[in-house]
Amino acid sequence: MIKVNFEKAEEIKNLSKHIDGAKTHISDLLAGKIDMTGWVDHPIKYDKEEFSRIKEVANEIKSEAEVLVSIGIGGSYLGAKAAIEYLSDYYSNRKGVEVIFVGNGLSEKYLKETLDYVEGKNFYVNVISKSGGTLEPAVAFDKFKALVEKKYGHDALKKRIIATTDKAKGILKEEADREGYRTFVVPDDIGGRYSVLSAVGLLPIACAGFDIDKLMNGAENARSIYTTLDENKNDAMKYAIIRNLYYENGKDIEVFATLSPNMQYFAEWLKQLFGESECKGNKGIFPASLNMTADLHSMGQLMQDGKRNMFETFIMIENDFDETRVKYNDKFFVNDLNDIALRATEKAHHTGNVPVIEIKVAEQNETTLGELFYFFEISCGISALILGVNPFNQPGVEEYKKNIKELLK
Amino acid sequence: MIKVNFEKAEEIKNLSKHIDGAKTHISDLLAGKIDMTGWVDHPIKYDKEEFSRIKEVANEIKSEAEVLVSIGIGGSYLGAKAAIEYLSDYYSNRKGVEVIFVGNGLSEKYLKETLDYVEGKNFYVNVISKSGGTLEPAVAFDKFKALVEKKYGHDALKKRIIATTDKAKGILKEEADREGYRTFVVPDDIGGRYSVLSAVGLLPIACAGFDIDKLMNGAENARSIYTTLDENKNDAMKYAIIRNLYYENGKDIEVFATLSPNMQYFAEWLKQLFGESECKGNKGIFPASLNMTADLHSMGQLMQDGKRNMFETFIMIENDFDETRVKYNDKFFVNDLNDIALRATEKAHHTGNVPVIEIKVAEQNETTLGELFYFFEISCGISALILGVNPFNQPGVEEYKKNIKELLK
Repeated sequence: MIKVNFEKAEEIKNLSKHIDGAKTHISDLLAGKIDMTGWVDHPIKYDKEEFSRIKEVANEIKSEAEVLVSIGIGGSYLGAKAAIEYLSDYYSNRKGVEVIFVGNGLSEKYLKETLDYVEGKNFYVNVISKSGGTLEPAVAFDKFKALVEKKYGHDALKKRIIATTDKAKGILKEEADREGYRTFVVPDDIGGRYSVLSAVGLLPIACAGFDIDKLMNGAENARSIYTTLDENKNDAMKYAIIRNLYYENGKDIEVFATLSPNMQYFAEWLKQLFGESECKGNKGIFPASLNMTADLHSMGQLMQDGKRNMFETFIMIENDFDETRVKYNDKFFVNDLNDIALRATEKAHHTGNVPVIEIKVAEQNETTLGELFYFFEISCGISALILGVNPFNQPGVEEYKKNIKELLK
Repeated sequence: MIKVNFEKAEEIKNLSKHIDGAKTHISDLLAGKIDMTGWVDHPIKYDKEEFSRIKEVANEIKSEAEVLVSIGIGGSYLGAKAAIEYLSDYYSNRKGVEVIFVGNGLSEKYLKETLDYVEGKNFYVNVISKSGGTLEPAVAFDKFKALVEKKYGHDALKKRIIATTDKAKGILKEEADREGYRTFVVPDDIGGRYSVLSAVGLLPIACAGFDIDKLMNGAENARSIYTTLDENKNDAMKYAIIRNLYYENGKDIEVFATLSPNMQYFAEWLKQLFGESECKGNKGIFPASLNMTADLHSMGQLMQDGKRNMFETFIMIENDFDETRVKYNDKFFVNDLNDIALRATEKAHHTGNVPVIEIKVAEQNETTLGELFYFFEISCGISALILGVNPFNQPGVEEYKKNIKELLK
């Protein structure tokens, strides 16, 4: 279960300012009064038949291949990347196949070297794009599709390529139907940054060997808690309100501080979630991230003594250790030092006028990850609605996609 | 050679405001009038005898071992990590040994799994700490020293452990003398975040198989250009002034945008350099980073349409491709698309009232890296001096180190 500690966030006393608004927003989200909010009930309403097929395909890939090439950008890769990093050990003892993410940029060098690397492996391809028209994944898909043909022959396309795309339309869906690829659905009412618990995230996560049933259970737990209208039981609501109170008081940067090295992409996922949902119409909190304690020795000076325009949200794993423990001395394990460092840091930053919010789970597993995904999604939705922006569109990104298409003509 | 483009940074017309100050600061830096500025002349005055020894030891490690465990935190790892990432191919065709960074945090899980991974390899240890007293590297060193003894016996310590530390004092230097470890020097007049071109960075970089002569040559080139007092020839001076002009106009976030996936840690190195040098006394620009084009699909919305409190510095590699090229179509290579995307993005952000500065090198090699390191170091020094803070201390970090020590008692 997620524990949230607001002790070092003074604005907790001013919750009442936005509490009625927050409750209205939760009610509206639950009632489906707002577009693109399919993710709200997704943990209890997701398509069970498709979910079974995802597990079957993942089992096939795990038993037949060494590598899954996952092609997608933005919300079509960050959630899965964050999940796989969060759930994996640091070295090669993976439970499933190696998942390699491409199509998330335009570096020719990276694309070429990945093609060379994958050519020597037994691989499948999962191309993830609602429309099929986004430039970066389209370029990568073109190359990896050619590699499948070259290595396995044309007939292998329908076995080795899995398309996660629109249920009915778009160039990728048309191609999938024509070529006979198996397909999964990018839901119509869930935007990219809220899509990690759909097929978009689930297939790569399952291929990496993780338990997606537990992931969904975690999200379901979180949904039941963080959609209640009782503020004493709903820390997501409190967090959403407090973020706004800090923003109103000139704190326009939120620093997400993680304490496990394998939460770097969870922080990247958070940055997209909040940045893209909230930062529009010339407002919104700039999301940044630190990986502790490493970054205390690089950004610690700034946190302690720089411009006082930020607040800090710690995201912690209580038991960040393996079965075999590592002692520091007779009194402490190394993990105890991490706790001590955290307390020292929270205290010092708070004393230095940086408000601190602490969000903690007991351990890194599929259940806590599902809880965290949902906790932040609902917090973000409520928070942006309090700020008065639509959390579920992204006009600025559409602008970039349009510019690129025109330049290529 | 570094090319800097200020076309989309209107404040270039107001340079005169700080030009005299900037010239005075450069003169003072060159004259050694400010403490902890040994890095200014380091590219021409570094200890050649030590430099030869670094190459000898690196050659020994490359011929005898598979892994170098590099133990350090903050400036004692970020520069080397940034360099090795920048210079490496994406998959396993390394030219030297695998360099693993530990002691840069307190995750028990990461420490344990790294110990297990390294135990099965032939390895050396490079412990990097001015004093030897910083908690994180001290904990890791204790464990890896024990692993050397366990695997190779006590007598192997003096062969397999190399200490980069103070030239004369401190607990690590005392231990090195007692046990007979080979040592290299963390210079007295160069702070951690400016130390990548000293033994601190050079030994791991050389062990990874890269040419540290070229690295130093690049820095020497950059020194000769970016310490001149002629503003028409010194883009580092211009960049330092422009940063301040933006800050004075309410732009208090600088977003470093890189366009190659292997520049993530170069951006982290920049964050420490600027954050720790400049953010004190409740002022300074908050440094953030984006990896393009991936992050256009996550943070692009914010850049386009969020709060207008930032400016953006692109750091680009012109020829980000291997010998064998990858075509997009008959007209373009994939790298051309990256250029097109960059231009589209710069234009869109600039139109959206985010000033854009572009810093570009032709390719990723040791020479351009040396140039970039020096360019940003001198820019940062000048910039912080214009802001009126001491760029070369870090009172906030010392505070954290003190807190931790007291809590452990």
